[in-house]
Amino acid sequence: MIRVGIVGATGYGGRELLRLFGGHPEAKVVAVSSTTAAGKRLQDELPGFGKLLDLTFETFDANGLAEECDVVFLGVPGTESMGPGAELRKAGAKVIDMGPDFRLRDAGTFKTYYKKDHAHVDLLGESVYGLVPWNREALKGADLVAVPGCYPIGALLPLKPLLATAKPSVPVVIDAISGISGAGRSLNQGFHFPEMNENVWAYKLGVHQHTPEIEQELGGGVQVQFSPHVGPYTRGILSTITLRPSEAVDVAACYACYDDEPFVRVLGEGDLPQLAAVRATNFCDIGWVMDERTGNLLVVSALDNLMGGTAGMAIQCMNLMFGVDERAGLQTGGMTV
Amino acid sequence: MIRVGIVGATGYGGRELLRLFGGHPEAKVVAVSSTTAAGKRLQDELPGFGKLLDLTFETFDANGLAEECDVVFLGVPGTESMGPGAELRKAGAKVIDMGPDFRLRDAGTFKTYYKKDHAHVDLLGESVYGLVPWNREALKGADLVAVPGCYPIGALLPLKPLLATAKPSVPVVIDAISGISGAGRSLNQGFHFPEMNENVWAYKLGVHQHTPEIEQELGGGVQVQFSPHVGPYTRGILSTITLRPSEAVDVAACYACYDDEPFVRVLGEGDLPQLAAVRATNFCDIGWVMDERTGNLLVVSALDNLMGGTAGMAIQCMNLMFGVDERAGLQTGGMTV
Amino acid sequence: MIRVGIVGATGYGGRELLRLFGGHPEAKVVAVSSTTAAGKRLQDELPGFGKLLDLTFETFDANGLAEECDVVFLGVPGTESMGPGAELRKAGAKVIDMGPDFRLRDAGTFKTYYKKDHAHVDLLGESVYGLVPWNREALKGADLVAVPGCYPIGALLPLKPLLATAKPSVPVVIDAISGISGAGRSLNQGFHFPEMNENVWAYKLGVHQHTPEIEQELGGGVQVQFSPHVGPYTRGILSTITLRPSEAVDVAACYACYDDEPFVRVLGEGDLPQLAAVRATNFCDIGWVMDERTGNLLVVSALDNLMGGTAGMAIQCMNLMFGVDERAGLQTGGMTV
Amino acid sequence: MIRVGIVGATGYGGRELLRLFGGHPEAKVVAVSSTTAAGKRLQDELPGFGKLLDLTFETFDANGLAEECDVVFLGVPGTESMGPGAELRKAGAKVIDMGPDFRLRDAGTFKTYYKKDHAHVDLLGESVYGLVPWNREALKGADLVAVPGCYPIGALLPLKPLLATAKPSVPVVIDAISGISGAGRSLNQGFHFPEMNENVWAYKLGVHQHTPEIEQELGGGVQVQFSPHVGPYTRGILSTITLRPSEAVDVAACYACYDDEPFVRVLGEGDLPQLAAVRATNFCDIGWVMDERTGNLLVVSALDNLMGGTAGMAIQCMNLMFGVDERAGLQTGGMTV
Repeated sequence: MIRVGIVGATGYGGRELLRLFGGHPEAKVVAVSSTTAAGKRLQDELPGFGKLLDLTFETFDANGLAEECDVVFLGVPGTESMGPGAELRKAGAKVIDMGPDFRLRDAGTFKTYYKKDHAHVDLLGESVYGLVPWNREALKGADLVAVPGCYPIGALLPLKPLLATAKPSVPVVIDAISGISGAGRSLNQGFHFPEMNENVWAYKLGVHQHTPEIEQELGGGVQVQFSPHVGPYTRGILSTITLRPSEAVDVAACYACYDDEPFVRVLGEGDLPQLAAVRATNFCDIGWVMDERTGNLLVVSALDNLMGGTAGMAIQCMNLMFGVDERAGLQTGGMTV
Repeated sequence: MIRVGIVGATGYGGRELLRLFGGHPEAKVVAVSSTTAAGKRLQDELPGFGKLLDLTFETFDANGLAEECDVVFLGVPGTESMGPGAELRKAGAKVIDMGPDFRLRDAGTFKTYYKKDHAHVDLLGESVYGLVPWNREALKGADLVAVPGCYPIGALLPLKPLLATAKPSVPVVIDAISGISGAGRSLNQGFHFPEMNENVWAYKLGVHQHTPEIEQELGGGVQVQFSPHVGPYTRGILSTITLRPSEAVDVAACYACYDDEPFVRVLGEGDLPQLAAVRATNFCDIGWVMDERTGNLLVVSALDNLMGGTAGMAIQCMNLMFGVDERAGLQTGGMTV
Repeated sequence: MIRVGIVGATGYGGRELLRLFGGHPEAKVVAVSSTTAAGKRLQDELPGFGKLLDLTFETFDANGLAEECDVVFLGVPGTESMGPGAELRKAGAKVIDMGPDFRLRDAGTFKTYYKKDHAHVDLLGESVYGLVPWNREALKGADLVAVPGCYPIGALLPLKPLLATAKPSVPVVIDAISGISGAGRSLNQGFHFPEMNENVWAYKLGVHQHTPEIEQELGGGVQVQFSPHVGPYTRGILSTITLRPSEAVDVAACYACYDDEPFVRVLGEGDLPQLAAVRATNFCDIGWVMDERTGNLLVVSALDNLMGGTAGMAIQCMNLMFGVDERAGLQTGGMTV
Repeated sequence: MIRVGIVGATGYGGRELLRLFGGHPEAKVVAVSSTTAAGKRLQDELPGFGKLLDLTFETFDANGLAEECDVVFLGVPGTESMGPGAELRKAGAKVIDMGPDFRLRDAGTFKTYYKKDHAHVDLLGESVYGLVPWNREALKGADLVAVPGCYPIGALLPLKPLLATAKPSVPVVIDAISGISGAGRSLNQGFHFPEMNENVWAYKLGVHQHTPEIEQELGGGVQVQFSPHVGPYTRGILSTITLRPSEAVDVAACYACYDDEPFVRVLGEGDLPQLAAVRATNFCDIGWVMDERTGNLLVVSALDNLMGGTAGMAIQCMNLMFGVDERAGLQTGGMTV
């Protein structure tokens, strides 16, 4: 049994880990820490886990966690995982960070988008970007994993196979819409139920912090025009990508690279994905349409931001790190209703 | 009092007319027809109108309607209004069609996108495209009005002022998301509550029938890449438009043309609209961001597809046709919750 | 024109007044006050009212309001309207309070349920309980109106006609479910969109503050077992009432008293109401089933908590106070979608 | 490995089985049949199961299923499982029916409530009512299980421990609200997204077919007044029960019987359950309030109608029948968001 610790276990990413580890045959959560809930029993804070997990939230203690756990997941807000991450690495723990702190290679870009100096620049080289289908081998030996952002997963999985053969002639337009769980637990007037219900809006156009992450991982100087939105639902990101290829591209051939990927499903031309098929799964579904009239390629991806976009991808990384079947604990079908 | 008839009054567009005319000081619904509900009392079919409207659904009868009514609104499915519309015109009635049949100038394009020959091509020249801010004068003398499609309103109002000074160098990308009321009353597995709830999808990418309507009204050979989506809510369209101007454009100056428009609100740079502010109103709200990094201009518009996108715009057209204050019956604030 | 002032105009009840007065032919909002938004333009705080209402929020000033306005509506939180209400009365203004402060006749009961001493016990005798169908004559001469609570309206309208002829043998069970707007604007983890979506719960069983209000207005020593719930939607209260009559009751005959009520619709035996038919209306719809097997009478009522349950009822009171058609501004049909 | 067959696998109950068996360590779905999808690959009909289950829907064949499978689950509409159930039993298969056909002991009552003669009355004696906490021993040796209805589970689990010591003096009032998945896949105007969204209604008051099932399993001549509702969400039943005990009852002591139940959680007095804590779990959560003022006991239960209320309870039955840990495959925490 892999002994798992979770830091920030009351957040939505942390809760999703707790949920998923309940069905994992080779791992077990043995420690949970939380700044807001330290000292409380897990089931008192999260009644959905009563009679399932008998744990008490602890204050964060790197050495203690390194001793009790084989791996520690970080589910804390952006810019708050670099400290605990560094401490845990120093104490010898393997670390899987679901936040943004170890994703960007360039500390200057980090500062521009996260408005904070990076306190552990040395670790930026050590961390492995946990986009499993593209970094599988590196993840097997990783000690520090940066789980990709939810939007970047929905953009990178469909885009990376295409860019190898077709360079876009103008910035790639990525219009994505996320459920509100992506914004986390923090209260906000805009996410108060009566104000978010029946509401949709766009935000951070051109300046969202996932923009440099997507561009870094696409490489080759490709620019993206990333326009995130939120809509009145809890889970899921649908990304609609408009790419203007500079030359003809055989999309089906490009996507053949995913034939054996356990959690990427290519639906084919004209068969567009929807959130219902990926809810509560680790899958990213991809479909496309080539519009010959305009010369644009439209690609659509769907994933569950909390599972395939965060906690599920994180567990898949863990499975690779510990040499167990990478699908372990992740093979349930979706809650189609 | 303007005497109003509504054909197809049980559909969602028709119901919205019924709702709005309840508060109109100078018009009154005097006749309703419906193929499915003929012979029934309105309040038995639509209990929300009990004690408000004492009417009985009739079978469609052009001459009878022309006699009883000063104006007849058509709220029937696409391709089914050209027949009744032509009959009503022949009988001497003024007609406001909320469907697509009289919007496109070119019968060949109509056939390509609606899969049906147009039976009354002669009327395509007579009809006035009811986009009030751009056709106000023509509407004052109109006898046949084609109310624009809901998506086109959300695209044309933000785009038309810009294209006068800045031509896009590549097709304009319009990613729009609509509530499910836009798909009408017809049952469909995809819109069954448990399957649509928490779901989002894209559809008809590159082939949606509103594409040629938008391009016709933009003119100047501008191409649009129109990508419609549906999301888990009832009302509202948010359109996110990515335009690559071939030269610098003074967006605020372009939008000054709307300063005195009663139902277009320009929010300004960086102030993005949301559906909550336009729900149950006749407004189209517009905001924008210029992304200097990529060279793209992002414009976002929000409207209520049933009111500002259909029935409200239709009533505004009627007000102009009959010389009453164009705002009559349309000045309620939004249901912000 | 009746000149209207609104204190607490940024709250959900206040916003609903702003929305409805946009369509009122004989009244006009001339002053708005707010503690949180004083000094701001209304449209900056509530962008849904841009181009509709050109007002600036003021700090509360009883004398100023009394001078500028013919009537002042109070839309502030419970226990916070007694002070402003008393000041406004002293300054000579007519006052319509949408909160609970002037509803209960007994100051001791007020303290028990609202945990605060009543500071203006003298006004409890002056205030008229604004349940229009039952207090129409008194309202015509009222200077201080206590608009009933939203749950009490949904309970009293169906129950009052029945109790005249049939006394229940055990406490009447009222199970009601409300949309989240009923809880107001205040942020709360339970109403954060991802936690309220797909969620339902019961609260304050047996101790909800609307219990004594319902019992006071029913009179005759009738006890109610009031069990409120919230569900994942914005507007509307559905109340399911289980009454055990001590003798046979002719329900239809009892409800004949509502035949000419403009905003109460009795649907009849076996025809149960739903929220869709009353959304954005001033109606309370009522239906019932007599279960001969168990001896219980089941009555169901539906209303829109913000309109028929608060702001619409308040405006109906105002119309009566000022001698205008009591239906003015309230005759729009529902947003059935 | 227990070899599982599912008849009616495209319905919502069937899909939930498919989802849950993905995480079951000791069972595997080997055959699926469907009248509407026979001949199609499962992943083409239910894209959420692509890359998870490589199965093809077959036409129903009792002998084939009996050979291929150790147990067959029936997920077909009410009154349509008695035929296949009887055939499967005759062919020697163990059968777990998620429909109502084998729940009622009395064929006359069945006919009254389901409007159909029961074709296999002989099996009514053989079938075991699958309410695990109350029939655990009988289930271990069962060949035919009738999984309880979703509403009955939410009523019986809280009520059965109480009735042993306190007889209600009047019929027990059970007001329950269900998500729309409880109504299944069949299209219906009332469940069309724009008409169900923001809507709540009561239905079948006093005549719902789960009434006799609840009374049968409570026994002792206890009558229930069962009032079901639907609300605008997908999953979950919240039941609010008003019971008038004829003598004092020690509620906590009554519920001690559930201390070791793996999937019943008693929250305690004043701690009321909510759907969020049981979504996507097999739990039934129970809380209560004794209202000394009225003499009524209020008990509230929450469960996920598709999992704890149907498919999860069915799998728990199967685990008992095959002697594996009854919690197998069911221990994931809830999707609290």
